[in-house]
Amino acid sequence: MAPPSLETEIIVARNFSDAQMLADGIRSGRPLVLDLRTTEPEMVRRLVDFTSGLTYALDGKMAKIAQGVILVSPVGVAVSSAELDRLAALGLYGSA
Amino acid sequence: MAPPSLETEIIVARNFSDAQMLADGIRSGRPLVLDLRTTEPEMVRRLVDFTSGLTYALDGKMAKIAQGVILVSPVGVAVSSAELDRLAALGLYGSA
Repeated sequence: MAPPSLETEIIVARNFSDAQMLADGIRSGRPLVLDLRTTEPEMVRRLVDFTSGLTYALDGKMAKIAQGVILVSPVGVAVSSAELDRLAALGLYGSA
Repeated sequence: MAPPSLETEIIVARNFSDAQMLADGIRSGRPLVLDLRTTEPEMVRRLVDFTSGLTYALDGKMAKIAQGVILVSPVGVAVSSAELDRLAALGLYGSA
């Protein structure tokens, strides 16, 4: 079996139908970066609640990695420091 | 292996911390009845979004079985008609 991919998929979620894309990504075992920086606050709440259910069910993890940016990791998948550097260059990591 | 229990667990959810009880129930493979009839509308939204993520992740199902009442079933678990009769007697099934 190949080691899990360490590159994250970046999802800019605007509405609740984006939740399914998120769910399919997590179910496939890939870490996702949920970019909610331009999402309406009420929709942020809904997407975060949905993602909480999703990750709780699958023993995954959610971590806020910048203002409005959440890293969602399936169980057993870690994101490399090189990948975090890539996210930082995109403004998606560390800029709180 | 014993057949899955067909009796549902009835959860009256009032706040978001009840979501974890719900999640643990579903993860244990047991069908749940989520009674939201006396829950604040905003909290209903949050609990339903969380449950959607949970059931989507686990290939479960959600069905509205009465006004403010949702049946949450893990994959491969059906609820018997006798159990639905029991729920109906409690006002949790069919009264739309």
